[in-house]
Amino acid sequence: MLVLPIPAVGWSPDSRALRILDQRHLPAEEVVRDLCTLSELIDAIGTLAVRGAPAIGVAAAIGLAVALDAESGGDGARARGLLSGSAARLVATRPTAVNLTWAVQRMQRVAEWARDTELLPALRREAEAIRAQDVAMCDAIGQHGLAIVPDGARVLTHCNAGALATAGIGTALAPLYAAHARGRALTVYADETRPLRQGARLTAWELARAGINVSVLPDGAAASLLAQGLVDLVIVGADRITANGDVANKIGTYGVALAAQVHGVPFYVAAPWSTVDPATATGTDIVIEHRHSDELGELPAGVPAWNPAFDVTPRTLVRGYLTDRGLVEPPFLIDPDPSGALRP
Amino acid sequence: MLVLPIPAVGWSPDSRALRILDQRHLPAEEVVRDLCTLSELIDAIGTLAVRGAPAIGVAAAIGLAVALDAESGGDGARARGLLSGSAARLVATRPTAVNLTWAVQRMQRVAEWARDTELLPALRREAEAIRAQDVAMCDAIGQHGLAIVPDGARVLTHCNAGALATAGIGTALAPLYAAHARGRALTVYADETRPLRQGARLTAWELARAGINVSVLPDGAAASLLAQGLVDLVIVGADRITANGDVANKIGTYGVALAAQVHGVPFYVAAPWSTVDPATATGTDIVIEHRHSDELGELPAGVPAWNPAFDVTPRTLVRGYLTDRGLVEPPFLIDPDPSGALRP
Repeated sequence: MLVLPIPAVGWSPDSRALRILDQRHLPAEEVVRDLCTLSELIDAIGTLAVRGAPAIGVAAAIGLAVALDAESGGDGARARGLLSGSAARLVATRPTAVNLTWAVQRMQRVAEWARDTELLPALRREAEAIRAQDVAMCDAIGQHGLAIVPDGARVLTHCNAGALATAGIGTALAPLYAAHARGRALTVYADETRPLRQGARLTAWELARAGINVSVLPDGAAASLLAQGLVDLVIVGADRITANGDVANKIGTYGVALAAQVHGVPFYVAAPWSTVDPATATGTDIVIEHRHSDELGELPAGVPAWNPAFDVTPRTLVRGYLTDRGLVEPPFLIDPDPSGALRP
Repeated sequence: MLVLPIPAVGWSPDSRALRILDQRHLPAEEVVRDLCTLSELIDAIGTLAVRGAPAIGVAAAIGLAVALDAESGGDGARARGLLSGSAARLVATRPTAVNLTWAVQRMQRVAEWARDTELLPALRREAEAIRAQDVAMCDAIGQHGLAIVPDGARVLTHCNAGALATAGIGTALAPLYAAHARGRALTVYADETRPLRQGARLTAWELARAGINVSVLPDGAAASLLAQGLVDLVIVGADRITANGDVANKIGTYGVALAAQVHGVPFYVAAPWSTVDPATATGTDIVIEHRHSDELGELPAGVPAWNPAFDVTPRTLVRGYLTDRGLVEPPFLIDPDPSGALRP
């Protein structure tokens, strides 16, 4: 299913580079860049040219494979010598990005088992596996999501958990793309999502680019939109889902969930199963990062911002949890992946 | 009580001009301007250099008095000849601004009763009466509001119904200035108030300028702030209060009111008694103006905004209505002003 003109992250046609859609230029311009070196990769992740947890993981894997190939001149022994230093530099770019560490660790594990002559091809295969698994995860959420997005649905979303955040059709937006591909008519409302405007800049851009009818509203208007009966369901993504079903997601999600419940509109969370964290009991155990005042734009001299990155939506406000394993229900118990792969 | 370095609207020291604090330059710069002509006045109101219903009314009255004086060369008969044309041009600047029409009508009524030789002094006296009544209205809200703002109070507000919107200490913010003047410690949280950012640009500026501790938060963070127990009360202004107590106010107010109720935080509306409109039965009778997509800033090509100017907060979410007549309770019945003055 073609959603974006090119995926947010993937291989260049000759497989010699990581190809990205540079999100710093959206929505004004579609800038496609091919990255071949570790420095270019680190710069792209650090400056949010690539963003979204799944997309960062895929970018790190492909980027590491192509950079080690280029920088070693195709020599497996030299590539092995570069690997641990490269991995450390890459992980340090965004130390709190779980998928970045996870993808880099998967690449390092593969290297441990490969002979020098097999190393570079093995790294490429692992990167491709990570990419393909991400695409499949998105597709699975989309297919399971068809059950909640009927023809004519009017859907409210918040922030961007879309194709731009993955190698595929997104997570929270995957059900919308799947429904659109079936020919179902949709009306989507995207919260602007201050302070960084991911809804206005990214969600609105990618849905419009795919031919889906979308409008942007100020975050403060969401309760009024719901009160006027203009929304049939809400779908948002998640940064983390705790064992009891509480959901950490972009700041502003909780207020939308409250208003949805008051007006009897079902509120769904759509996310990779890997977002479920059975080791964290409830939302009160999640430490919320507070970000810099600068993100809010011009403020009067000396006035600080109260600028948390996330909020917690309690389980009681969530109608359903849509994952690549289908609609799931808390409590979420410890469930080691039988393949032994690291999470996510 | 000195709140701003100069009032948002008032007389110049020699009374020959309308002096304003030009709000287009806030919060970066404090630009004071003296306006003497009708064109300058119309430009200031049309470009939102002056904004806020009470401030617009005062600016129109003082501005009309000084402009007619200057443009007639102090000749009452010539001023009378200019009055109706000037009044019509002024009202056309913002046709939906009730206080603008009201103030201009008061000025015209005075002119009907004055002889030519008395006309210009009579217009000046009427303008000063309008200004002084506005200051007194603000002070009264502030004094009545002392009962709800104890020492140490942590207060959340939305948009700007402050000193910058009046000739005095504001309406929704008046209780805060009154409490601060009594030496009570306050912590204020100002919602950014997208799309036009009146909270971040204006409320935060004027409270900080007066020495009150204020932070700005994204509108989407308000529910989380309330959930964390960081707010003791919410005070907002109102554009209109209907007979049953429903409140039309800046978009975003309703969502804050919902979250406040869920978390047991009292939600107060503070507004001039003139904001009460007994002729409108309920909030569903209020037509909500939708504004241009441009206000939301950059959006993807072809993506519209859903951008209502106001929302309606139902009576059930309002703990109390604080006016210049004290705390009042709905229903609000038709109550012709015994002085026979036009409303507001």
